[in-house]
Amino acid sequence: MATDWAVEKAVMVKNEEFIQKAEALIPKLYHKEEVPVEIISYKAEQKIANEKANAGFGKDDKIIFDFGHNHAGYFQFHIKCVGSPQDAPVFLHIKFCEIEREIDEDCQNYSGWISKGWIQEEWIHIDETPRHVKLERRYAFRYAVITVIDTSQKFEISFNEVKRVSVSSAYGTVSPIQTMDEQLKEIDEVSVRTLKNCMQTVFEDGPKRDRRLWLGDVRLQALVNYQTFRQQDLVKRCLYLFAGMPNQEGMIPACVFEKPVPLMDDTFLLDYALFFLPVLVEYYENTGDRETVEELAPSAFHQIELALAYTDEQGIICEEGVNCGNGIYHCFIDWNEQLEKQCAMEAVLIYTVGYAQKLCKILGDYVGRKAYKSLEEKLKQAARQIFWEDEKQVFVSGKERQVSLASQVWMILAGVVEQEEALKLLERTKNTLITMITPYMHHFYAEAWIRAGNPEKALNHIKQYWGGMIKAGADTFWELYNPDNENESPYGGVCVNSYCHAWSCTPAYLFREYFEAEK
Amino acid sequence: MATDWAVEKAVMVKNEEFIQKAEALIPKLYHKEEVPVEIISYKAEQKIANEKANAGFGKDDKIIFDFGHNHAGYFQFHIKCVGSPQDAPVFLHIKFCEIEREIDEDCQNYSGWISKGWIQEEWIHIDETPRHVKLERRYAFRYAVITVIDTSQKFEISFNEVKRVSVSSAYGTVSPIQTMDEQLKEIDEVSVRTLKNCMQTVFEDGPKRDRRLWLGDVRLQALVNYQTFRQQDLVKRCLYLFAGMPNQEGMIPACVFEKPVPLMDDTFLLDYALFFLPVLVEYYENTGDRETVEELAPSAFHQIELALAYTDEQGIICEEGVNCGNGIYHCFIDWNEQLEKQCAMEAVLIYTVGYAQKLCKILGDYVGRKAYKSLEEKLKQAARQIFWEDEKQVFVSGKERQVSLASQVWMILAGVVEQEEALKLLERTKNTLITMITPYMHHFYAEAWIRAGNPEKALNHIKQYWGGMIKAGADTFWELYNPDNENESPYGGVCVNSYCHAWSCTPAYLFREYFEAEK
Repeated sequence: MATDWAVEKAVMVKNEEFIQKAEALIPKLYHKEEVPVEIISYKAEQKIANEKANAGFGKDDKIIFDFGHNHAGYFQFHIKCVGSPQDAPVFLHIKFCEIEREIDEDCQNYSGWISKGWIQEEWIHIDETPRHVKLERRYAFRYAVITVIDTSQKFEISFNEVKRVSVSSAYGTVSPIQTMDEQLKEIDEVSVRTLKNCMQTVFEDGPKRDRRLWLGDVRLQALVNYQTFRQQDLVKRCLYLFAGMPNQEGMIPACVFEKPVPLMDDTFLLDYALFFLPVLVEYYENTGDRETVEELAPSAFHQIELALAYTDEQGIICEEGVNCGNGIYHCFIDWNEQLEKQCAMEAVLIYTVGYAQKLCKILGDYVGRKAYKSLEEKLKQAARQIFWEDEKQVFVSGKERQVSLASQVWMILAGVVEQEEALKLLERTKNTLITMITPYMHHFYAEAWIRAGNPEKALNHIKQYWGGMIKAGADTFWELYNPDNENESPYGGVCVNSYCHAWSCTPAYLFREYFEAEK
Repeated sequence: MATDWAVEKAVMVKNEEFIQKAEALIPKLYHKEEVPVEIISYKAEQKIANEKANAGFGKDDKIIFDFGHNHAGYFQFHIKCVGSPQDAPVFLHIKFCEIEREIDEDCQNYSGWISKGWIQEEWIHIDETPRHVKLERRYAFRYAVITVIDTSQKFEISFNEVKRVSVSSAYGTVSPIQTMDEQLKEIDEVSVRTLKNCMQTVFEDGPKRDRRLWLGDVRLQALVNYQTFRQQDLVKRCLYLFAGMPNQEGMIPACVFEKPVPLMDDTFLLDYALFFLPVLVEYYENTGDRETVEELAPSAFHQIELALAYTDEQGIICEEGVNCGNGIYHCFIDWNEQLEKQCAMEAVLIYTVGYAQKLCKILGDYVGRKAYKSLEEKLKQAARQIFWEDEKQVFVSGKERQVSLASQVWMILAGVVEQEEALKLLERTKNTLITMITPYMHHFYAEAWIRAGNPEKALNHIKQYWGGMIKAGADTFWELYNPDNENESPYGGVCVNSYCHAWSCTPAYLFREYFEAEK
């Protein structure tokens, strides 16, 4: 995820003790050497399938190295001259593609609002051959595409020992899910691969972009991790990084940086900050690590306090980006630019107040638990009163009273409507025009069906949506997938889209959490 | 110099003993850290003169670091973020320019016949800042031009500790020439700088391009070196490299490579091969190193034998590129593509037969000397008979009987015409249409005036031609200079021209050899 919600004058208040704990948990990275499964080359624009890359290549020739699967890793090769001695620098363009359609995409003219620096390509000169070339940077790629910009009239070049050294902190193999349904098995496999690629020294959102830790994203990654790689210390590290770098008001940033030293991003999203509660509670449920939970609980509770500052007496939260007297907040919810977020944000607040009660229970704080219970009831009541439109029998958001799927989904997950009523609501609104863009939001949609008591609908949705991505060529799940628009991008161009994005790996969690026992 | 005269089936016959001697003479390289003398930056296309480079720069901003003089060296800088934390890779384009006009030249579309790889530019991504960036490759530049392709909307970058680490094997300072003429002083200074830049682990032709050892070029470099830096071992190293890697016929290649191991280039030029004789003789004259001369003399004499194979009974050499029964030879003479080279090539042969006599004298071989003397006389007689056109009173070349400056100059240097006759010939032909393109040929033109007894004309020519380059912005002397065409290039575009080229550094030799004593 990338945002433009920078908060001016946000000052990081670093808790050095927390950061030290986080840094002590930097995981070991595991490397694996891989060779291409297929090499396709074009000489003078003539395709030569399965050509050995050690043939001679010259000006404008192109060689595609297909490593079979998309992985985060490093690229290296051995290059030597063919013909006369090398009488000029070899000039190569190397492009790294997660999916096949990127191979022919021209990204020179990308002019969207995020950095062109994310496009995975390099121009390199090699003055002397033979040479073993190891590119310094890490890329996410299935395909490495080398275009020979120039050699000279007197020599060509050949490639040998072409390798990807893939890298992840995820260790071991994950048992496949027990099902006869091959499509589900494949969806699960792709989900697990997606997570593995994003498990580095933190849970990255995507190994191509932004390569860093986002709180909303990590919540879903942690859930999948508990069911797959079970590297609980990586979740713990992320918890301490977030709790260790709030701003001067104690708000946890939406994102933190690891390098050059741990740093708070000046991006603050209210929904993301509140998700610190479920991450902490679920961490405890999966580890029993009481010490960590006790240490971090104050940071978690404080996020609710901060959110409440944006509510009125009744408990209704301001519209996003509107100053109701206590400053402005931003939230994410989904990338759909038409989405009015007030209603969903209210629901996220209620949802996390539920986790506050769980946290109180873990800590044995029954007074606190009762207070949050009564807060939850107040907020639910207010929500029904303000956001529920009796006439249409839907939740609406903002002054324009917008009907979106996100609003319904979050009100269901918050428990504002339940069971039969929730089911009817989902049926009633499933074709709403303000739809969902991100697999992140689609995850919550699937969960809403489960919560409403119809897991088959969730499974069908997974088969349709995540299965659709696989049909469209996904080998890891994408940051964005809109079945109706293959050029969907919130960034002004698909060149910077990420095709391995952890927030889309949740089928592996959903299958194991809700379905596997039944099969 | 770069050529397309590759010889098929040329096999290197390596003399390991010679190569070992050459490798034992690899000189120490001296490094010097330099800071920019001026920094000019453009923010949003607004020029900010003398701006500190540590201001913040973002997308499309451009910073020009001017190091005052053109030098071979390495580029490094410290980069850090300004604003929010770095949330995207920094993407920079860095271009290295020897002269000012290159700064605004667009070289993306260069499509000439030599490699685009010679264009001195890089595209780099920097994932993490702050960082000290040292580019690995060596460049020749006065200006380093950084264009910020992208940062992100959230941060800018600043540069500090911007340095060029210039490099040369030339050591010490060279005393300026004794003259009141400021223009001559400046020409001399620029000449010496040009040579210094080309003195690396061999005498390179140019530090931008081709960065390697050419025999015709090294002959002129050696002459300047004897009068300036006096690093005689570097000449010795080059002599052993050439003599150590002839082809199967014993012909010395026009060019050799140092890396990855010493290698013969498969380019053979008859004039260049013959120049091994003057290089060896002049090396002895300046060092008295009899051992080297004795060891390498057989290789030198053999080049004449090889050349004679292309002559008829009378002693007339074939036209270049025409098979007269003993294969085809190529020669260089000058870059002028209209030039018919037969006559000049005949003269070069005669000229070097003169040096064969000197070599015999050094070795005490009076029989050999006599034989070469009689060969010289025979060739001179034939040359006058075949190439002299009585009616026009000029030397002509080829079937078309072309009149070129190169033919006259080389016949004078060969002593086929002398003194008054030579002087009249130069006067008569100085405005010939087939003119000279390279400073290399202009050097021989100046020498021809001196040889003909009018050194003032030579001096005037130097002031006009080399002085003209300085007026046109030269800080080191160029590979090519045509006062009438600033876009002169034999390569299909000026982007790959070299603006520091050793074959143009000879005024520093000519001044000291022929003029200084008089002043």
